[in-house]
Amino acid sequence: MLHQEFIHKLEDLLGKDRCTFSPEDMVAYSYDANPEKRAQPEGMVSPKNKEEVAEIMKLAYAYDVPVTPRGGGSGYTGGCVPVQGGIVMAMDRFNRILEIDRDNFIVIVEPGVVVQDLQAEVDRIGQMYPPDPASVAFATIGGNIAENAGGIRAAKYGVTKHYVMGLEVVLPTGEIVRTGSKCVKDVAGYNLTELFVGSEGTLGIITKAVLKVVPKPEARRTMTATFSTLEKAAEAVSAIYATGVRPATLEFLDRISLEAVEKAIAFGAKPEEGALLLIEVDGSDHALDAEVEKIQTACEQCGVITFRKAQSDEDREDLWKARRALSFALCEIATEWEDDDISVPIARIPAMIRKLDQIAERHHIIIANFGHYGDGNIHIGMTTGKNGGPFPMKAKQEVVAAVVELEGRIAAEHGIGCVKVENLHWNIDEPTMNLMRRFKTLLDPKGLLNPGKVMPKG
Amino acid sequence: MLHQEFIHKLEDLLGKDRCTFSPEDMVAYSYDANPEKRAQPEGMVSPKNKEEVAEIMKLAYAYDVPVTPRGGGSGYTGGCVPVQGGIVMAMDRFNRILEIDRDNFIVIVEPGVVVQDLQAEVDRIGQMYPPDPASVAFATIGGNIAENAGGIRAAKYGVTKHYVMGLEVVLPTGEIVRTGSKCVKDVAGYNLTELFVGSEGTLGIITKAVLKVVPKPEARRTMTATFSTLEKAAEAVSAIYATGVRPATLEFLDRISLEAVEKAIAFGAKPEEGALLLIEVDGSDHALDAEVEKIQTACEQCGVITFRKAQSDEDREDLWKARRALSFALCEIATEWEDDDISVPIARIPAMIRKLDQIAERHHIIIANFGHYGDGNIHIGMTTGKNGGPFPMKAKQEVVAAVVELEGRIAAEHGIGCVKVENLHWNIDEPTMNLMRRFKTLLDPKGLLNPGKVMPKG
Repeated sequence: MLHQEFIHKLEDLLGKDRCTFSPEDMVAYSYDANPEKRAQPEGMVSPKNKEEVAEIMKLAYAYDVPVTPRGGGSGYTGGCVPVQGGIVMAMDRFNRILEIDRDNFIVIVEPGVVVQDLQAEVDRIGQMYPPDPASVAFATIGGNIAENAGGIRAAKYGVTKHYVMGLEVVLPTGEIVRTGSKCVKDVAGYNLTELFVGSEGTLGIITKAVLKVVPKPEARRTMTATFSTLEKAAEAVSAIYATGVRPATLEFLDRISLEAVEKAIAFGAKPEEGALLLIEVDGSDHALDAEVEKIQTACEQCGVITFRKAQSDEDREDLWKARRALSFALCEIATEWEDDDISVPIARIPAMIRKLDQIAERHHIIIANFGHYGDGNIHIGMTTGKNGGPFPMKAKQEVVAAVVELEGRIAAEHGIGCVKVENLHWNIDEPTMNLMRRFKTLLDPKGLLNPGKVMPKG
Repeated sequence: MLHQEFIHKLEDLLGKDRCTFSPEDMVAYSYDANPEKRAQPEGMVSPKNKEEVAEIMKLAYAYDVPVTPRGGGSGYTGGCVPVQGGIVMAMDRFNRILEIDRDNFIVIVEPGVVVQDLQAEVDRIGQMYPPDPASVAFATIGGNIAENAGGIRAAKYGVTKHYVMGLEVVLPTGEIVRTGSKCVKDVAGYNLTELFVGSEGTLGIITKAVLKVVPKPEARRTMTATFSTLEKAAEAVSAIYATGVRPATLEFLDRISLEAVEKAIAFGAKPEEGALLLIEVDGSDHALDAEVEKIQTACEQCGVITFRKAQSDEDREDLWKARRALSFALCEIATEWEDDDISVPIARIPAMIRKLDQIAERHHIIIANFGHYGDGNIHIGMTTGKNGGPFPMKAKQEVVAAVVELEGRIAAEHGIGCVKVENLHWNIDEPTMNLMRRFKTLLDPKGLLNPGKVMPKG
């Protein structure tokens, strides 16, 4: 229960219209995109500037109240779910694009700006903000930074951390710090920016971000290529990279995913097609035809079954259809899925898929794999099927073990949140975990900021 | 004076051939490329594995001995100069390339590998390690990571931190931690890698690095363009970027630099030429001619005086001649130079140069500017001339003030070291400085690892 005095102080600070403690309002702040993790807070505050954020943190520290920051709520690992109650700090009023510095390829934004809105703004001046997770329409920049979001362009453009040049952060104890700068080359002091990127709101609350943008590519080309097996597709990927061409996007669907989509939307997959690559290159218009040709040749050398090239925007939408229909299509196989988000060094994707096949066989489950081939990021869906029994949780642990064996990571772009906390030790050894804990304790000695996330209990 | 017991324990650990305490040997470990900062250590140790590094740190902690790690000694800000005595830890035995994982575009190296050797190794398999500071022939990877080195390709490819995927680090108190991974998408725990990159060996000793490499560009094209003023050149740079073309290299020489080089090597500069851009694009051969054409058009629209294109490797060397002759040429103007390495957001380079001109005028000094236009990095040489009087140090402070006014950084790619420690407050505010100090103290409570660097005394 929140202390009445604490509540009154928050109301004095923010006014009654920017905080609420009524139980019926709490439902809206109890979840993210992961249906299994829910927890209601006892209050919600909606600050509109960094000073208020700092004051709230000081009050939380005075009254020992957990604080969970919240962006768009579109995460998959419960990062914004207030698992220890306390208050949720909704960052939606931090919704301004503060500066678009076209000449310097920099934008300065508040964390509550929706990613797609930022993308649209910079697009209007011929620039591009590359991180492009599936949730762009509702995810916020702050959430993307907190989770170090990836998306479909990471193969060429990298992930969110590659675009964060500086941050303004309110520390758990209320101090306001500024990291980084507008400069590409900057070695003034320690690089603190990256420590906050991907820390899932456990080390500080982002109140401003200096982001890098890039010139908008003049043109792009979209292709799909199908192969009998994912091994064949993997050979094609190696062959593509060997040409020196760096696709912006390199997505894949495995056989199960492909069959599910074919069943759902009949887009024309043949029974012998066991893997699909969706490839996009972007850059100077002049260069792209040659790149497409190189990709086609590479695919042909590796036994491509069908190679399609988009000739128009309409064609492109058509080629993306299979990838976009996937989530929906998988619901036809089963309504209950255990999802995972892992990454391996890209050349080990086939080995990982083989291991997943073995796990599926061993536990009599269905595993559908798809995701971002170009950066080694596999999204794994596991199910016992529509009328299957309870899911064998041992299979999930076997997936983790397989990831580690291939030098992969148990979390690629969806965070650790509260969902994977107990598995972190698979990737992080004890001395390193200890160091991470010491950083957390240094910044948040009472452990009040987004408790229960990222770090397992020591 | 080192304790005899400490010396004996080091000799027991490493053998007498891998440590020395004789004063005459100490000269070799007393300097870097900055002629003004020298300080002799009292001993030198040369470990060959991480366990030895850890043991040395534990001994240093037991006997309160400062430890200064040393790579190639090619830094410019005294980062490896043992200003508080103690022992130097030479990392030259960590000289193995441990793994070249071609399919995954990853190399794993020890910190003592010379950057150029690594570049040559990956070049042989058609890949490229992009960071390319002028000191590649002797600088080591460890030093490059410690200083977050930049170089001539940063305009397109970024700096060292963009290529460090993971590190093995011995902490000041002897624990061994492992950060990052081989995976592009990796959100398993806090990102500690970047905290160590650019920390100049003050937070830990790097014993292994996982580095990213990229496909080697199929081809490149080299051009030079001269303009009457740097303002005109700046307009051309904006016009080039507006075409969407992203040069890999975009170097500049200002009027003083240009005149000095012309005087030294008579490469054909005309009196009316007051600025030179050296531009390289790389990528798919097919695309480059069109890119060169766009660049040429952009330059022509901005009043280019002479535009030269290299038609051969020999031509290329010729175009690079002016840039390469610069250091030598400046010696003809004066033997004593006060150098600086700063960066500003790229579009503010002309404003910065104007401020530098004013400073030169005010103090009756000569200021020569050159460097990496494409990433806003200006190398500034200041002198009172061959028979000039003592250098007015106030001019240096005015440079710092000008940098800050333009939202630039007082250190771009040469580190803070011990040379700029007292100026760091110009870029880092007190709460942030305080946080940096707390991190340093957490990791190095006795302040024994590379003392006197990066952080000013609190």
